Amino acid sequence: MSEPLWDPLFGRTAVGAATDSPAWLQALCDVEATLAVSCASTGLIAVADAEAVVAACAKVAESDPADLGVQAVAGGNPVIPLVAALREQAGSAGVAVHVGATSQDVLDTASMLVADRACVPVLDAVAEAADATVSLARAHRDVVMTGRTLLQQAVPTTFGAVAAGWGEGLDRAARELRAARAGLAVQLGGAAGTLASWHPHGPAVRAAFAAELGLRDPGVVWHTERSRVAEFAATLGVTCGVIAKIAFDIVLLAQAEVGEVAEADPGGSSAMAHKHNPIAAVTARAGAIQAPGLVATLLIAMPAELQRGAGTWHAEWPALTGLLRATGGAARRLADSLGGLRVDTAAIARNLECLAGAGVDLDIGHAADLVDHFLAGRTR
Amino acid sequence: MSEPLWDPLFGRTAVGAATDSPAWLQALCDVEATLAVSCASTGLIAVADAEAVVAACAKVAESDPADLGVQAVAGGNPVIPLVAALREQAGSAGVAVHVGATSQDVLDTASMLVADRACVPVLDAVAEAADATVSLARAHRDVVMTGRTLLQQAVPTTFGAVAAGWGEGLDRAARELRAARAGLAVQLGGAAGTLASWHPHGPAVRAAFAAELGLRDPGVVWHTERSRVAEFAATLGVTCGVIAKIAFDIVLLAQAEVGEVAEADPGGSSAMAHKHNPIAAVTARAGAIQAPGLVATLLIAMPAELQRGAGTWHAEWPALTGLLRATGGAARRLADSLGGLRVDTAAIARNLECLAGAGVDLDIGHAADLVDHFLAGRTR
Amino acid sequence: MSEPLWDPLFGRTAVGAATDSPAWLQALCDVEATLAVSCASTGLIAVADAEAVVAACAKVAESDPADLGVQAVAGGNPVIPLVAALREQAGSAGVAVHVGATSQDVLDTASMLVADRACVPVLDAVAEAADATVSLARAHRDVVMTGRTLLQQAVPTTFGAVAAGWGEGLDRAARELRAARAGLAVQLGGAAGTLASWHPHGPAVRAAFAAELGLRDPGVVWHTERSRVAEFAATLGVTCGVIAKIAFDIVLLAQAEVGEVAEADPGGSSAMAHKHNPIAAVTARAGAIQAPGLVATLLIAMPAELQRGAGTWHAEWPALTGLLRATGGAARRLADSLGGLRVDTAAIARNLECLAGAGVDLDIGHAADLVDHFLAGRTR
Amino acid sequence: MSEPLWDPLFGRTAVGAATDSPAWLQALCDVEATLAVSCASTGLIAVADAEAVVAACAKVAESDPADLGVQAVAGGNPVIPLVAALREQAGSAGVAVHVGATSQDVLDTASMLVADRACVPVLDAVAEAADATVSLARAHRDVVMTGRTLLQQAVPTTFGAVAAGWGEGLDRAARELRAARAGLAVQLGGAAGTLASWHPHGPAVRAAFAAELGLRDPGVVWHTERSRVAEFAATLGVTCGVIAKIAFDIVLLAQAEVGEVAEADPGGSSAMAHKHNPIAAVTARAGAIQAPGLVATLLIAMPAELQRGAGTWHAEWPALTGLLRATGGAARRLADSLGGLRVDTAAIARNLECLAGAGVDLDIGHAADLVDHFLAGRTR
Repeated sequence: MSEPLWDPLFGRTAVGAATDSPAWLQALCDVEATLAVSCASTGLIAVADAEAVVAACAKVAESDPADLGVQAVAGGNPVIPLVAALREQAGSAGVAVHVGATSQDVLDTASMLVADRACVPVLDAVAEAADATVSLARAHRDVVMTGRTLLQQAVPTTFGAVAAGWGEGLDRAARELRAARAGLAVQLGGAAGTLASWHPHGPAVRAAFAAELGLRDPGVVWHTERSRVAEFAATLGVTCGVIAKIAFDIVLLAQAEVGEVAEADPGGSSAMAHKHNPIAAVTARAGAIQAPGLVATLLIAMPAELQRGAGTWHAEWPALTGLLRATGGAARRLADSLGGLRVDTAAIARNLECLAGAGVDLDIGHAADLVDHFLAGRTR
Repeated sequence: MSEPLWDPLFGRTAVGAATDSPAWLQALCDVEATLAVSCASTGLIAVADAEAVVAACAKVAESDPADLGVQAVAGGNPVIPLVAALREQAGSAGVAVHVGATSQDVLDTASMLVADRACVPVLDAVAEAADATVSLARAHRDVVMTGRTLLQQAVPTTFGAVAAGWGEGLDRAARELRAARAGLAVQLGGAAGTLASWHPHGPAVRAAFAAELGLRDPGVVWHTERSRVAEFAATLGVTCGVIAKIAFDIVLLAQAEVGEVAEADPGGSSAMAHKHNPIAAVTARAGAIQAPGLVATLLIAMPAELQRGAGTWHAEWPALTGLLRATGGAARRLADSLGGLRVDTAAIARNLECLAGAGVDLDIGHAADLVDHFLAGRTR
Repeated sequence: MSEPLWDPLFGRTAVGAATDSPAWLQALCDVEATLAVSCASTGLIAVADAEAVVAACAKVAESDPADLGVQAVAGGNPVIPLVAALREQAGSAGVAVHVGATSQDVLDTASMLVADRACVPVLDAVAEAADATVSLARAHRDVVMTGRTLLQQAVPTTFGAVAAGWGEGLDRAARELRAARAGLAVQLGGAAGTLASWHPHGPAVRAAFAAELGLRDPGVVWHTERSRVAEFAATLGVTCGVIAKIAFDIVLLAQAEVGEVAEADPGGSSAMAHKHNPIAAVTARAGAIQAPGLVATLLIAMPAELQRGAGTWHAEWPALTGLLRATGGAARRLADSLGGLRVDTAAIARNLECLAGAGVDLDIGHAADLVDHFLAGRTR
Repeated sequence: MSEPLWDPLFGRTAVGAATDSPAWLQALCDVEATLAVSCASTGLIAVADAEAVVAACAKVAESDPADLGVQAVAGGNPVIPLVAALREQAGSAGVAVHVGATSQDVLDTASMLVADRACVPVLDAVAEAADATVSLARAHRDVVMTGRTLLQQAVPTTFGAVAAGWGEGLDRAARELRAARAGLAVQLGGAAGTLASWHPHGPAVRAAFAAELGLRDPGVVWHTERSRVAEFAATLGVTCGVIAKIAFDIVLLAQAEVGEVAEADPGGSSAMAHKHNPIAAVTARAGAIQAPGLVATLLIAMPAELQRGAGTWHAEWPALTGLLRATGGAARRLADSLGGLRVDTAAIARNLECLAGAGVDLDIGHAADLVDHFLAGRTR
């Protein structure tokens, strides 16, 4: 956990563990181990040497990332001292470490591996939140409530339709994020991206490398074509937008004067004992607010200069880590909020009276169909 | 053209015309006309009335958008006075105008129509730029050049591989943007998004509406689930990142001390007659730099409050317009730059000498394969 | 007006006129005219020639900016064809046009002039909004109302204290913006920023140039040190944040279920006749939402490469123009909203009952002092 | 250190220690201790009780922030469990803990205290970088070099003028940051910002509180008027822009084909032994690239809803921490780069030949004056 004072509050405990320094070190070592195995599979190095490299990687993965961190300063990235440590550890098989690769290959592939692994808690939380909307939509399918446009009472909808709308958003976000995760690809190109050092086995090494790591073989080098990173970031950003919408809807519906929902475990106050703050939704929103700026950072970092970005590349690491954490945390807190959400149908009915008083037709038309459509879509 | 002093320089002439006030007014009128036709197709209004509405829309589309602009202030969006104008114009068929719809339905669908239409100049320019990389990659397939990482000479690559890498990025951007364009969908939900006013014909009206406009039937209401808008924006943002990378590569390779490329029509200077500024690339980059902030704005605007965003919704209009213009303009200027790019193979050879002098192996391995792979991929 | 369909709605009519293509052309001509006068004042050119240049500038300022826009493409900025047009217009005094200057000097100074002039409508609107809070704070100084934290009823405050808080924010924003405006400085350095062409009169020419234009003499060249631009942009961004807070407070207090305020001219709906949308506040918020992304763009553009930014510089023009418009428009719409804001003290009292019911102490302590402190601060 | 694998590389070691969880816990405890002392100074609590609270704060400050982090979830911020811990620790003096304050008072003031303390390493690094430019400007005052505009050779300047320009930017940034730091103010308002609980001693308590903490007494409550936070963030953002400009200038001048500067300790490569990467400048730039997005986040978070932001407030904590780290790290790495920068005057002279060959006048005019002006300005 990188920020022990803050991570639980912002729901970042699990996603934090998937993206912290030990997780990155593990990913870097997994990449070097897999590279050796892949080179051995095409005969570029001996199988026994590859096995020694794998063992060395397992050993170094347990070391203190702080040591590597200090040694990373001189060369400008942690792969340079990592390779040195692996060669020392591998002894006579040291020559089989990092064959043909450049630092960027290892760091880019490790960052995709970190992203892939961090998707597990993110997707789990999004799914948990989406499942909660199913329960809400089903339970309140026909509860007529005031629709509010520009925060003014407008025409009726149903709580079921509102919850179904939340769920459609979350399901879509999960679908897009799963697709983006499936697109996470290894990067392997060598120093200038020409696959020179494995020639003519480059594509074969890359294919084996990808298969072994459970990432996609991109078919191209992308050391300076950063669309993949930016697209993945954008998917996380959109996920946060979906979360922020639902979280703030909950905050709005939980207002004392509206009172249509309440969290199961509302927060108290250091000064006001009577308060029932929808704190899970509030912190979900706080996490989601981080996303637009972080997505912008990853777009800003796209234009990698010539054959390796001079700072643009390095700028991706903290931004991508931060974005994964913000998204995973926001999703986690939204799941907390939705999971125990209490719906006050009496309050809903009371608020609807104003609308009736204004002479608005309370026909809710297609609203139940919207719920049924949402529920049916989930069982397909 | 909305900014006559600036639009040609930033390549925004065509995309500007597709997104300016008359273009928006046309789109709004097209949407109202199509809505009438769609309602008639399900029997909700008479066919003759629909025809009268279509005629009224054609008439109003030719009016001065400034009038509608002034009238839009009172109600908060231009659809309210537009509907009034159409009803007046349609005479006895006025009752058939805007049936069942709310302002947001019309504005959201019109914004998707504007985006769809603006994609034409954007995609044309991206394709033109990509085609130019094909010529460059083919012509210089085997021209060995210095690869530069962190802007330092590293190991060799070829100009063909560099151009192929540019082309892969542009082709990917075009593919993603075409896919995003194909996903642009109508929005139709009525005031609270329940399809109430067309009940039980809502889904049928929406399907006809989408088919007629050449947009997708989303199958759901998305009045407050803005993923679609944000995803489209992100695709434009990634396109700009791809453009910025290539544009700045050109600027870097065109430096006097590097001298490996030059634009066909380099810009002069108000003070320095000897200068050969790669001004098309420079302005392409300037346009692309606008994108991260604009994408952030559209992510910030995602959390639409309850059943209609109170300002978050309205914030999309200028940001989406601005992003389309920035992307279309940047793509246009990049096509200008790449289209006439001159490659100085003598300079490339000269710069390579330093690398040879450093004892670097000049084997370029897989580089020609990268070009062939790129060219083959385009003919599939 | 650059976007006739949208500008009135977003309150951008006045600020749009101060930042559109004719306004930029006027500023460019004013800068060239002043440069000639300043050069004449130090004897670098003849006074009669300077007068001819001034006359030429007045003439060219009336030309169609679209012509200059088209001619700007070749050289990469509008100053190059502007200088040609001025030289032609000035006839034998043509040699006195643009003496010693480079395009960037003229464009940077013109952009500061545009910013300076656009500050007038921005500051007027902010002041009008702030004045409206004074009336509100004074009129409702002692109206006890529910304070709401995390959108939950908390402890009491007064409407006066709330309005005073809004006013403190606006007054601070106005103060900061006036200071930022006073800091807007000419840029004059010549092609590489060394003042070479006026040597040894550079500092004297710059001082006269600044005095004549009503801008600050920066004492340094800042062609590639863009802090001034970014700081000014940040001040606009913070102003938008202040506006967005107040605008959304109004939207929240105007909710049907809260009902504590209403706009004087609430907007209707194309579908719902009973609605009273606080549309001025809504569109103020929509404008303000544009700011964070635009400020980010101007920060992204800061790192001008070596002696002139290759695209980073050009990227400032649309972003700064957009930010001025967003801020001026948002301020204008907030002034509209606050200027006619109706406060429903009965609703305020009714909402307070819940708090009283929760046993909260209704002592409002220092609240009236906050109002008095605000009012006193304004008369100082 | 929160990210041991990355912090040294990005220069964040010192600023990380000033902003990590223990540093926040220390600041929170310092604020509670000072509040007690301030309340005692106006007689609101007994001096002996205040002393007991101070002792309790010292004790709790040494506890594991992870415990508080877990307990923070329920109430939505760490102050609620902190107050409980302090009351338990203070025993019979527990009643004197957190008198009159709300969580936001303590968190806002603590965040200003964290910012104030983190400014020390940030300002030290900026000053060290600026001092290095003085040495460079003085040593190379009259070294004529090619000025480059749009990355094309333009007209001459001097290395001294370039270094002086860098130094002017850094000095300005330091000046602005010192001013922003001096403006960091306590927040004290009580639950709804009315100072109710200390009435009529509120202003006196606040004045004592500020004096004791070394922060400014703002004279107003700013719980929902977040200009102060955003302005401070913007100052950090502009500082990063200044850093990014200089860092990338170094990268550009260090290109093999330009070769005018080199870092003292250039980085090697995991694949290319001959490389001399200006890695300190590269990582400085990488850090600075984080800033625009983070500044945007803090602007996005400005509109705090009514009397406390529902997530907007909470969103400030990670963003401000991240921005302080990015700025401090970037400044640290830039100081590393500039501190050992080697200037190759032979290369500078060689590159100048091209310009001479183009017939450009090599008069450098005011360039030496620019250096002298910069140096003189620093001794004032």
